[in-house]
Amino acid sequence: MLPPFVVLDPILENWLREDIGRGDRSTNGLFPDHNAPIGNAKWIAKADGVIAGLPLAARVFYLLDPSVKFTAIARDGQTVKTGELIAEISGSLATLLMGERVALNLVMRLSGISSTTATYVKAIANSPARLVDTRKTIPGMRILEKYATFIGGAINHRYGLDDAVMLKDNHIAAAGGITEAVNRVRANIPFTTLIEVETETVAQVQEAASLNVNVIMLDNMPMEMMRQAIALIRAHSPSTKIEASGNITIDTIAAVAELGMDYISTSAMVTRSYWLDISMRISNAFQ
Amino acid sequence: MLPPFVVLDPILENWLREDIGRGDRSTNGLFPDHNAPIGNAKWIAKADGVIAGLPLAARVFYLLDPSVKFTAIARDGQTVKTGELIAEISGSLATLLMGERVALNLVMRLSGISSTTATYVKAIANSPARLVDTRKTIPGMRILEKYATFIGGAINHRYGLDDAVMLKDNHIAAAGGITEAVNRVRANIPFTTLIEVETETVAQVQEAASLNVNVIMLDNMPMEMMRQAIALIRAHSPSTKIEASGNITIDTIAAVAELGMDYISTSAMVTRSYWLDISMRISNAFQ
Amino acid sequence: MLPPFVVLDPILENWLREDIGRGDRSTNGLFPDHNAPIGNAKWIAKADGVIAGLPLAARVFYLLDPSVKFTAIARDGQTVKTGELIAEISGSLATLLMGERVALNLVMRLSGISSTTATYVKAIANSPARLVDTRKTIPGMRILEKYATFIGGAINHRYGLDDAVMLKDNHIAAAGGITEAVNRVRANIPFTTLIEVETETVAQVQEAASLNVNVIMLDNMPMEMMRQAIALIRAHSPSTKIEASGNITIDTIAAVAELGMDYISTSAMVTRSYWLDISMRISNAFQ
Amino acid sequence: MLPPFVVLDPILENWLREDIGRGDRSTNGLFPDHNAPIGNAKWIAKADGVIAGLPLAARVFYLLDPSVKFTAIARDGQTVKTGELIAEISGSLATLLMGERVALNLVMRLSGISSTTATYVKAIANSPARLVDTRKTIPGMRILEKYATFIGGAINHRYGLDDAVMLKDNHIAAAGGITEAVNRVRANIPFTTLIEVETETVAQVQEAASLNVNVIMLDNMPMEMMRQAIALIRAHSPSTKIEASGNITIDTIAAVAELGMDYISTSAMVTRSYWLDISMRISNAFQ
Amino acid sequence: MLPPFVVLDPILENWLREDIGRGDRSTNGLFPDHNAPIGNAKWIAKADGVIAGLPLAARVFYLLDPSVKFTAIARDGQTVKTGELIAEISGSLATLLMGERVALNLVMRLSGISSTTATYVKAIANSPARLVDTRKTIPGMRILEKYATFIGGAINHRYGLDDAVMLKDNHIAAAGGITEAVNRVRANIPFTTLIEVETETVAQVQEAASLNVNVIMLDNMPMEMMRQAIALIRAHSPSTKIEASGNITIDTIAAVAELGMDYISTSAMVTRSYWLDISMRISNAFQ
Amino acid sequence: MLPPFVVLDPILENWLREDIGRGDRSTNGLFPDHNAPIGNAKWIAKADGVIAGLPLAARVFYLLDPSVKFTAIARDGQTVKTGELIAEISGSLATLLMGERVALNLVMRLSGISSTTATYVKAIANSPARLVDTRKTIPGMRILEKYATFIGGAINHRYGLDDAVMLKDNHIAAAGGITEAVNRVRANIPFTTLIEVETETVAQVQEAASLNVNVIMLDNMPMEMMRQAIALIRAHSPSTKIEASGNITIDTIAAVAELGMDYISTSAMVTRSYWLDISMRISNAFQ
Repeated sequence: MLPPFVVLDPILENWLREDIGRGDRSTNGLFPDHNAPIGNAKWIAKADGVIAGLPLAARVFYLLDPSVKFTAIARDGQTVKTGELIAEISGSLATLLMGERVALNLVMRLSGISSTTATYVKAIANSPARLVDTRKTIPGMRILEKYATFIGGAINHRYGLDDAVMLKDNHIAAAGGITEAVNRVRANIPFTTLIEVETETVAQVQEAASLNVNVIMLDNMPMEMMRQAIALIRAHSPSTKIEASGNITIDTIAAVAELGMDYISTSAMVTRSYWLDISMRISNAFQ
Repeated sequence: MLPPFVVLDPILENWLREDIGRGDRSTNGLFPDHNAPIGNAKWIAKADGVIAGLPLAARVFYLLDPSVKFTAIARDGQTVKTGELIAEISGSLATLLMGERVALNLVMRLSGISSTTATYVKAIANSPARLVDTRKTIPGMRILEKYATFIGGAINHRYGLDDAVMLKDNHIAAAGGITEAVNRVRANIPFTTLIEVETETVAQVQEAASLNVNVIMLDNMPMEMMRQAIALIRAHSPSTKIEASGNITIDTIAAVAELGMDYISTSAMVTRSYWLDISMRISNAFQ
Repeated sequence: MLPPFVVLDPILENWLREDIGRGDRSTNGLFPDHNAPIGNAKWIAKADGVIAGLPLAARVFYLLDPSVKFTAIARDGQTVKTGELIAEISGSLATLLMGERVALNLVMRLSGISSTTATYVKAIANSPARLVDTRKTIPGMRILEKYATFIGGAINHRYGLDDAVMLKDNHIAAAGGITEAVNRVRANIPFTTLIEVETETVAQVQEAASLNVNVIMLDNMPMEMMRQAIALIRAHSPSTKIEASGNITIDTIAAVAELGMDYISTSAMVTRSYWLDISMRISNAFQ
Repeated sequence: MLPPFVVLDPILENWLREDIGRGDRSTNGLFPDHNAPIGNAKWIAKADGVIAGLPLAARVFYLLDPSVKFTAIARDGQTVKTGELIAEISGSLATLLMGERVALNLVMRLSGISSTTATYVKAIANSPARLVDTRKTIPGMRILEKYATFIGGAINHRYGLDDAVMLKDNHIAAAGGITEAVNRVRANIPFTTLIEVETETVAQVQEAASLNVNVIMLDNMPMEMMRQAIALIRAHSPSTKIEASGNITIDTIAAVAELGMDYISTSAMVTRSYWLDISMRISNAFQ
Repeated sequence: MLPPFVVLDPILENWLREDIGRGDRSTNGLFPDHNAPIGNAKWIAKADGVIAGLPLAARVFYLLDPSVKFTAIARDGQTVKTGELIAEISGSLATLLMGERVALNLVMRLSGISSTTATYVKAIANSPARLVDTRKTIPGMRILEKYATFIGGAINHRYGLDDAVMLKDNHIAAAGGITEAVNRVRANIPFTTLIEVETETVAQVQEAASLNVNVIMLDNMPMEMMRQAIALIRAHSPSTKIEASGNITIDTIAAVAELGMDYISTSAMVTRSYWLDISMRISNAFQ
Repeated sequence: MLPPFVVLDPILENWLREDIGRGDRSTNGLFPDHNAPIGNAKWIAKADGVIAGLPLAARVFYLLDPSVKFTAIARDGQTVKTGELIAEISGSLATLLMGERVALNLVMRLSGISSTTATYVKAIANSPARLVDTRKTIPGMRILEKYATFIGGAINHRYGLDDAVMLKDNHIAAAGGITEAVNRVRANIPFTTLIEVETETVAQVQEAASLNVNVIMLDNMPMEMMRQAIALIRAHSPSTKIEASGNITIDTIAAVAELGMDYISTSAMVTRSYWLDISMRISNAFQ
């Protein structure tokens, strides 16, 4: 689900420029004539997890030096164990050292997200509910962090403010009610834009269900209220999808799923995950 | 320690564009004539921590709409408690809703980093050792994540490959030894560029100390070896700074500091921290 | 429905740079010390039509010189007659002359689109069908040309390849059938992404209707086949929207609408419309 | 007359990004592992006209995926008939579908311009007068729309405000007369910049002719006045070129040309032309 | 003759970013809370010369901090003496120190060019010949270095490859002769583009004169050959301008001018000029 | 010491766009179908000097047209004599002519700097002192002009405001003294950032030496004061480096070096150097 490189390259190039700045003083200082020896590098998992981002790592090295060869041994979405070989890279030692940090930072961060995602997905694997992500992402990383949750087994929620309508309490208050808000928005948005309404009470659920909106979000509701809401929506608006949101944890998610939810959203994969540790070991041709 | 806005604005603007895409379907759908009512918003801490990033949040709203008024109640570096008021914002409701996510994502992420940093800093507060960060940062966030570790009480390590020389095992092997590597680099780099050498054995420490390099890093050494290394460096190269690195945790950091280290580096603040939860509550003028 | 200026400004600035190049030889040649007199300008309609783009024209002058005052007399969406005053501008004569062409080109082009749109909209005003646009737009003008069709009374179709799924004959063939294509796509896309299926036969309509997709497009079908298709969809998939497409003209559109269509799409507003003629008349303070 | 790709690529890449956004949901949804089959596509003219833009279409596909093969069958400037094969493309089906719209939009628009241009050029083919374009172009498309008028047989007028001096009534009034305006400008502009003066009366023509300017434009003059103006200029300033402008239509252009005009300018090719219809038909390797 | 800031700002901003990098360690280190005191600065000439670039310096400080006040005391084109006050600046001491180098580098370089230009202009002040510049300029500085030669009293030659046709020996050889080259080019270029032909022999001059080209360049000719060439051109092509080029020095330029040349071009102002020394002296409010 | 092309390409591409503008009217006018013949070009030194920038020239042609072959005959840092062959280029004549000026301007400027640098370096070759450059560089050329001074034999000073702390009189005054300034800065900057203090009196030198700063600059001091300062620093702060600055000329530099200076800085290589003259001679395949 990665966009083509014509979309990604400017981002990846900026990241290389961020790290390299005015030049790599260490490798340039050692090899001012750009005659560094050829080296071979291995990426080794230093923890168990789900890998994400290898095609991006390959591209990072390519953009730095098209003669570098990056061979993914694992594939995105694969579960790796500590000590497993993830990728092999060969090329100018200077390029390997110059691109290492950007490529690793990216894959370690994305794999951390997909690994955490996988644990949430596993927790609801026996229900029809699907885990979805949110717009809580590191600025500048939206596309790639959503790629990582997808790789980890989640399905994506909207990518931005233009990707779907989400009517929250403030929108609704400003418009003077759910019905008014939905009708006003419907008159103005592209007809391909789905409408989701956030609800906090059963009365709001009822109003939203009567409007045949595409998705109703049950925000921070107690279990019993969610049960009621689901019954109500299924009865009056069968084509509407239902999303649970708010304070979902790895401990509570299965119970929520079993209520018959369509989607359960959480930002935990992004806001409460660690990086997956990966190391790069280089062996030079001259050794 | 933030650079001026002429440096930051292009980054912040890109982040707004990432989230807004082709337009905010929700607020534009409700207010197609850009006549949204004025609203007031409060940012409230939903967890205890150290705040970082408020001047950036203010700028995000300013870039979206210069008529929005963002008033920081807390200041960067301040410890806040759950429920505390962090900032107040007033302006067009459409702008508040459009800028909310980018501004909050930024401050929640940076505050998560500075909060974790503060716990590490506290652990070594009784020693002269200073906590330092690394180049393990989210691509595109280098300057701001390092700002967050600084706000949390750490001191920054180099910002990029051009900011200092760091000679690692591969550089050293490629050059044929520490002495050769240091001499070769010294001939080519700006004279204002500091040289740090990574060492793993006492013999390497000894060689590095004899070269009067600016910093010697003790990489993943056992406690006893570090003790020896410090003694050796203090004796033979008193102006050289000493940095411990590798597998530093909140449990082990104090003991390492007490060895008499100058700097202890870890990426934990960035790679193993959660976002600090903050919520934005809007009250509209019309309510 | 225009996105905020943080999104639009880079585009508008590039357009000014395109026209100005290395400097306006005429006004700079006359006023090398940037001391041109103040002038007042009027924009006058030279044909009847629906105006679109005035807020953009105002911004073009603002970006060139914040001291210029642009006062829209008409508002976007208003029908104007030949000779009517559309806007008044006052400021440095050099700025008026430098910004004139970019601002007018934009408004004349967009108003041409909205004027043509209005004639199509009027033709189906008595039916519940809504006119929708397409992705046939001038490269670089997507957002603004879609703004113009909206201003003319149409509703927008998707803005880009990421805005909705549209499964065409080639997608379907590649997947091995409509059912396979829809199922495969559903597993991978954001759950907020609507799915539209293009159909050319009644059998295809039947298959698509059984999959409960969001929109079925009837592509280039004869009237009778469209009648059959609508009946079939309404019976088996009542929440699915129906779009007619292909060879819609101002002469045939009403008949298609009367079949009970939800949406009728055409690119005619963009590909077969003339610019609305508008002239700018300047009166200088010194005259 | 196209500039090199180092100039064009950033524009073409932005156009791809405009359409693709965060990714092609349809093809990425079908082929999330980027393993789409190879397809072959044909571009077929659906109307008669003059083709323009094929090298740009080839580049659009190349920028998306260098392994796509685009073979132009027609060449820019060639007249094609309905049903004629224009180009063949082969490559990943996903790339063909992703690049189709941008490439076609470009060629259909440019070919529409060159086709309309050709009808105007034909109308004055028996006179020495040359058709020229104007600065009325879609913002962002100046270079390419002028390329299209050139391909259609016109000759280009200035590309921007820096490309030649054009003294209009407002410039002249601001300077206090034609003589003053011309002299003031001449002192300041690059000596390689040609000066054109717009005239509306015979007296103005006379004054301009006495100044030996490079071009005199006869703006919106009646036929008899143009005849007089030409005689006057030929007599007193033989090296000055003469341009007719204003309300030129396909019906009146021949008569104007026969007066002995050097250039006749109109924006009709850009502001009053339809797109040339072209369709892309894909046959997959697997069919 | 400076283009508007919409053209210049991106260039000036990049220059500030080049110098500031990730932040000004000195002023940020001293004033991490951005609370530097207000300071006043004076720019003093440390050599005699012609000032150029003050509006750009003012803009540099403005882009860094709109609250800084830059007051030009001299104006561009004015001759200043050692010790003279050129400008006064007041604002945050941090901003003054951060913007100083970029602003001064720009004005010192441009003033160096305009000062050298003035000496060449003075040398031919008694002849009708005008000094013109060339395309030998520092990459990225074309517009501003040509501004500086204009300020110094020269008139600009073409700004780029699109600004005029210049047919050199290689163009002519490739086309098969001057006549063929001129005719071929004339058929393809905008009619507003002037044609200049480079000549090295009297025969070439004769051929060029017969084609009524706009400018004939006499390249590296001996004095006597130039005299002949001028006579020949004046006789056969009176509206053609004549430019001398090649090995013009401050010692030879007057003699060349007296031959009756229209233009004499040299790159000396750019390639053989020193910076004009200017110092910035700050007095802080707190002193 | 050049950074990788991912850093340099955007700069080089902008320079090509600056010169080419909307297209090369001369070569495009001659070869509108891009069918120019193949040509061969030689770069010949027209003066003695030290060459710098050939890898950049090669890249300029490559970015314009990857099929061009640029063969450096000299290498950067080599001393060439008038008439010597520097490089050979073969490829489309149109590309050779289009890229010539940008590539030559760059190499002529940089070689001018490295040639001047070499004369200063030679003057102090018998002392241990090293020549260093400054931040007085043409805006936009910082990296490359510092590359040229390095190629000429100098060693680089800081590249920007983030590359080292330099405390000047104004910083010191604002902080209330050298000790206060150094201490305040030390608390805030990355620990890898070196601190340099500018001194004008012996008392200041003494204070700076007591703080163990990395570098002390002796600014515009008389010889005898420098001698005293050096003795004082060597005695009290042996690891501190000493830099002389201010009014260094080719006549005085040797005497300063002999005092036992570590570094001597001057901007003369950049601000008081001429371009090295190089010509490009083309021989076409068809001749």
